[in-house]
Amino acid sequence: MRAPTSHDVAALAGVSQPTVSRALRGDPRVAPDTIRRVREAAGALAYVPSRRGRSLSTRATGQVAVVVRDLGNPFYSEAILHLHAALDAAGRRAVVHTDLPGRPFAAEQLLDGAVDAAILTTTLVGSALPGALADRGLPVVQFNRTAGGDAADACESDNAGGGREVATLLAGLGHTEIGAILGPADTSTGRDREAGLRAGLAQRGIALADARVRRGPFSTATGHEGLASLMAAPHPPSAVFCGNDVVAVGALNAARALGIPVPDRLTIVGFDDIAMAAWEVFRLTTVRQDLAAMSGAAIRLLLDRIDDPGRPPRRVRVPVELVPRGSHGAPARA
Amino acid sequence: MRAPTSHDVAALAGVSQPTVSRALRGDPRVAPDTIRRVREAAGALAYVPSRRGRSLSTRATGQVAVVVRDLGNPFYSEAILHLHAALDAAGRRAVVHTDLPGRPFAAEQLLDGAVDAAILTTTLVGSALPGALADRGLPVVQFNRTAGGDAADACESDNAGGGREVATLLAGLGHTEIGAILGPADTSTGRDREAGLRAGLAQRGIALADARVRRGPFSTATGHEGLASLMAAPHPPSAVFCGNDVVAVGALNAARALGIPVPDRLTIVGFDDIAMAAWEVFRLTTVRQDLAAMSGAAIRLLLDRIDDPGRPPRRVRVPVELVPRGSHGAPARA
Repeated sequence: MRAPTSHDVAALAGVSQPTVSRALRGDPRVAPDTIRRVREAAGALAYVPSRRGRSLSTRATGQVAVVVRDLGNPFYSEAILHLHAALDAAGRRAVVHTDLPGRPFAAEQLLDGAVDAAILTTTLVGSALPGALADRGLPVVQFNRTAGGDAADACESDNAGGGREVATLLAGLGHTEIGAILGPADTSTGRDREAGLRAGLAQRGIALADARVRRGPFSTATGHEGLASLMAAPHPPSAVFCGNDVVAVGALNAARALGIPVPDRLTIVGFDDIAMAAWEVFRLTTVRQDLAAMSGAAIRLLLDRIDDPGRPPRRVRVPVELVPRGSHGAPARA
Repeated sequence: MRAPTSHDVAALAGVSQPTVSRALRGDPRVAPDTIRRVREAAGALAYVPSRRGRSLSTRATGQVAVVVRDLGNPFYSEAILHLHAALDAAGRRAVVHTDLPGRPFAAEQLLDGAVDAAILTTTLVGSALPGALADRGLPVVQFNRTAGGDAADACESDNAGGGREVATLLAGLGHTEIGAILGPADTSTGRDREAGLRAGLAQRGIALADARVRRGPFSTATGHEGLASLMAAPHPPSAVFCGNDVVAVGALNAARALGIPVPDRLTIVGFDDIAMAAWEVFRLTTVRQDLAAMSGAAIRLLLDRIDDPGRPPRRVRVPVELVPRGSHGAPARA
């Protein structure tokens, strides 16, 4: 079957071929009645405008790349759903670009004309990617993690504020022997949550001792190994803050393997509030990131950037909320 | 900063501009030494070939769409990682196209020239999408789920064989009061696993009574509500097969909420072997899909299809394996 062309649509609608392209783009120079007629003809023929032709004339594809390093973390599949819905409401389509473990994402992958803009969700601190894309004229928003500096618009949670809320919770319960299994220091989320926790504890005269800190990628393995290591040490903590929920889930599994009841003998707190945090087997007390608010704010930044490429970069910080469930309690009496 | 063009590369390499395009495509008419010189010049200038220009001349973008309806199911994030690696080894790049809940995926989204081929992972039984794409000349492979018929190449697990293995396991343990929380009948995976389970049980004279069957989307909610409903009925089952691991995880959470110990009072078996099936809080006995083998086979089907668009469609069925963990046991004595 030969695919229908814009000439077929023009013949059916009784207009010229250039009018077909203009009508399908919604060009205001075309009369509304003509636009309706062309669209009906295009629909009847199941005509698909060639993106190659369209992008040569308008340089717009309607597609926005969502760049994600870690699809295995449910936080990102949940984020993609929210970003996709927010982009859809703005008449754009999300395509997900992911990379292979250990292989850095190259700016070139986004600069071949396939996408109009990009949302970067897993940028590392100091990454040149947001600036490189912005310099090359691609509208870009950093979402969740940020590279630092002001090379590009950014939308993130109040990660430090969330860390401080955890400190307040743990100190209020009477914990003083506090441990942490932290994410990588080269992620803004890992760095800021740690800084908030430390600041909140210091305010109450509680130290986070190096001997009670473990660190690793945001993975269940980090939480599993981190908790086993903390609990095998000479002075195990009575409460452990985990850098995100995936790490906390690993820690909760390790507690199960070690026969340590949570929260009776050990408090575990996470960060993100992914769906599984609410599962009965976990009942994880955590800090909720507001993905709907973050996604809406990110898309507004992106649309403003597309409208006005020269405007100064902005940074939006979205409030977080402590979600108390069943994994926290007072320290056990010795 | 002005982006470098193929003319800049041509000037630096001392060749004509058309030679630059041919050299970067690896055209055999260009001498190897010239290809090397052009690639060095392109690298030195950080030159990115325009996909718009390239696709107009060769109609190849190097991108393969992986279409996924349900990113929230970890099976698909794990599948994407395997498919991405297999595509990478074949010199192609995966881009993930996902859709919004309740919004059907339209063939047009893949026919605008942005991708060379597509891997469909969540096709429904009877879907016209694989055939529509194949008819329009897009190389397409159905992965995991298939529409039925022979409109397009397909690679799937031996889902019926896996269902039979579960029947063998449950019957061998002495279960006769067997229940099931099944996936949608309009998915080939849901349909074939159910058929295999029923056939295997029938062979041993065991019926799967309608009163002990629940059905729903492949989600934790289906498993949670399904188990609560099964256990509240007059004659609750002693063993429950779940249509996939996500459903089984929901059922295990419901068992926890109801205070029903697994496997002492209830056996629960899943299908897929996603990473969380091995977590200590679940220890889920399940049927393993071999994602590495499936991905390799799917990419071979796709490359063969690209090489020879006219060849008859093929169907590859990959063996599955029962993974016994901690969620199965003999029926409790009354």
